Amino acid sequence: MKPAGIITLTTDFGRRDWFVGIVKGVILGVNPSARLIDVTHDLPPGDIGYGAFALAAACQFFPPGTVHVAVVDPGVGSARGAIAIQTGKFFFVGPDNGVLSWAVRKDKVIAIHKLKNESFFLRPVSATFHARDVFAPVAAHIANGTPLSALGPPINDFVRLVWPEARSCGGEAVGQVLYVDNFGNAITNLEVSALENHGGATLEVLNAGERICYVAEFYQAVPAGEAVAVTGSSGFLEIAINGGSAAKELDLAVGSEILIRKVAP
Amino acid sequence: MKPAGIITLTTDFGRRDWFVGIVKGVILGVNPSARLIDVTHDLPPGDIGYGAFALAAACQFFPPGTVHVAVVDPGVGSARGAIAIQTGKFFFVGPDNGVLSWAVRKDKVIAIHKLKNESFFLRPVSATFHARDVFAPVAAHIANGTPLSALGPPINDFVRLVWPEARSCGGEAVGQVLYVDNFGNAITNLEVSALENHGGATLEVLNAGERICYVAEFYQAVPAGEAVAVTGSSGFLEIAINGGSAAKELDLAVGSEILIRKVAP
Amino acid sequence: MKPAGIITLTTDFGRRDWFVGIVKGVILGVNPSARLIDVTHDLPPGDIGYGAFALAAACQFFPPGTVHVAVVDPGVGSARGAIAIQTGKFFFVGPDNGVLSWAVRKDKVIAIHKLKNESFFLRPVSATFHARDVFAPVAAHIANGTPLSALGPPINDFVRLVWPEARSCGGEAVGQVLYVDNFGNAITNLEVSALENHGGATLEVLNAGERICYVAEFYQAVPAGEAVAVTGSSGFLEIAINGGSAAKELDLAVGSEILIRKVAP
Repeated sequence: MKPAGIITLTTDFGRRDWFVGIVKGVILGVNPSARLIDVTHDLPPGDIGYGAFALAAACQFFPPGTVHVAVVDPGVGSARGAIAIQTGKFFFVGPDNGVLSWAVRKDKVIAIHKLKNESFFLRPVSATFHARDVFAPVAAHIANGTPLSALGPPINDFVRLVWPEARSCGGEAVGQVLYVDNFGNAITNLEVSALENHGGATLEVLNAGERICYVAEFYQAVPAGEAVAVTGSSGFLEIAINGGSAAKELDLAVGSEILIRKVAP
Repeated sequence: MKPAGIITLTTDFGRRDWFVGIVKGVILGVNPSARLIDVTHDLPPGDIGYGAFALAAACQFFPPGTVHVAVVDPGVGSARGAIAIQTGKFFFVGPDNGVLSWAVRKDKVIAIHKLKNESFFLRPVSATFHARDVFAPVAAHIANGTPLSALGPPINDFVRLVWPEARSCGGEAVGQVLYVDNFGNAITNLEVSALENHGGATLEVLNAGERICYVAEFYQAVPAGEAVAVTGSSGFLEIAINGGSAAKELDLAVGSEILIRKVAP
Repeated sequence: MKPAGIITLTTDFGRRDWFVGIVKGVILGVNPSARLIDVTHDLPPGDIGYGAFALAAACQFFPPGTVHVAVVDPGVGSARGAIAIQTGKFFFVGPDNGVLSWAVRKDKVIAIHKLKNESFFLRPVSATFHARDVFAPVAAHIANGTPLSALGPPINDFVRLVWPEARSCGGEAVGQVLYVDNFGNAITNLEVSALENHGGATLEVLNAGERICYVAEFYQAVPAGEAVAVTGSSGFLEIAINGGSAAKELDLAVGSEILIRKVAP
């Protein structure tokens, strides 16, 4: 796979300070023609699950050969490893703490390497900012064509966050909220297509035993202020309030159990 | 007009999630050399008027041939159309709900086309994210040189938001607040040049019958904490507090009536 | 020094409106191939010290020949000057109000020029938005190779913010908080290396006569919720709460006095 010259950034650094800017400066010092795309820098600080979900939702929409860097790294400076992963379509660079794992959940992993070769780092390596000193220059070198094998020894596996599989049985499926987006939409791990033989029947959505809404095609299928569940842009069922925040108004958060089933005729 | 290879983005998606990143990934998949510029992604969700004003204020400062994409799209998935507009200077792409209309208010429109040709879309087209599936790839194709006529049938007109014209009569002009910016400055539809024969006289600014400030050349013409009206960077009179928020302290919002007139000698 | 084709932007404009987008549009009109990097646009409005610190912390990590634009400009439209500075490594463009001064504090200044030649401006120059009308086009021309001497007359000096030097004496050093970052970390002007002969001894950190934490290598050297001081990515000692906000929980702000010293054996 040839690198595409595109590097994406997914972090919890915020945008108020100079941290993201520096990461880009370091990349351009190594690879002056890299195209730099922000996925987000506003993840909840230290929340590896949010980072893993955002990266997984975003990465597939980039051209093959894109280098995806994700840094949610509460353990920076401690013993956690740093890795690069190559799949059939992309390169991934980040701490070995699970943040990369959902992005490659369904893909064939071709190679995993520890980042050990300091000649690809910005030195001296600080104890607090590996995005600048390790991940940025390594990503820039990968986008330049450096093979993963030059970066450090191959390893067999890496830290994987458990993906909470939805369970479906007959006309019901049970899952949970995985991510609450900026609009307050509660994105679940449920896929309507997984519900067998629902064949166009009306589907209802329950939380804690109570029906909170029905499944529809789009947000405005319900009047303003009402709840609706739609298959969101990430392919998963998400619960929304037309013009409002479902998370707030329906008291949903990451981990809230969600059940969908056919409405009894 | 030759495309400039520049695509601007004006949305209400926020920056906390991956939505803007994906839109850029899709564009780069179609047009790897596109220059991507964020105008804003922090418009009040669903506020078409704010989007229309921001696009109109920003678009003129880009090179000819720029493709401007604006997506404030509360009706995504419903029956609202999707369009591309070509003027003498720019291309515009977005939902046909008025968000593009103030940007082309004073320009000669050369062509308007419905976006109907699905071969330019990312398929399958979702019901919730047309920025990704329709507007991004179409904009990338336009920046690649695809003529609007390939995108779908020409139409004669599109949804236009009413532009609230200021009225001037003798030494007075009456208008209203159209936009409150990040600093709390209240931007109006009043142009000082429209006030006939004011010839350097001191001008006072009134809201609800009370004088709130005078017109001056720049913010610091008044002491810190005091109100002033200046011709802002968009060419319209804006009411500011030097070092504070005029909207908050003077209780101004979109729609607040503003009158300017010569001070009685 | 040859320009690198990279222009960075450090401002207090916020991202909610179209101001940053316009600045980029103007730059691309002059220099279509410029690489545009946001350092930050979320500085506290009008806070020149924050701007000076952010620019100084960020600028060194960009390739030689980068043009750094910093605009925190409460005096826009008044008598304050506009300048460009060339050092051995970078170009700097901004208002002459101190915002550029900490970035060049330790560097040899090769040239300082007033921005006076209006043929490099976007005209007419507004009274409220010199980033658009003066600094953006001038930076784009510098990145195009225009020498500073073409921009206006050379000057001998420019407005410099006083850099509060830390004082160290024997086993103690006294400094102050200069910047509070997005995570609530309180960044000081203290450098551990400046503390003579500390030779690996444990160091304690005091504010207002009370010990608030010890110096360690990285944030997670202490349990979650506890305070720690580390040498941050800018090279200065910063006081953090592992997983929290040191500024809030320890009541630290810009100007808070910080003392470090060896713990008595």
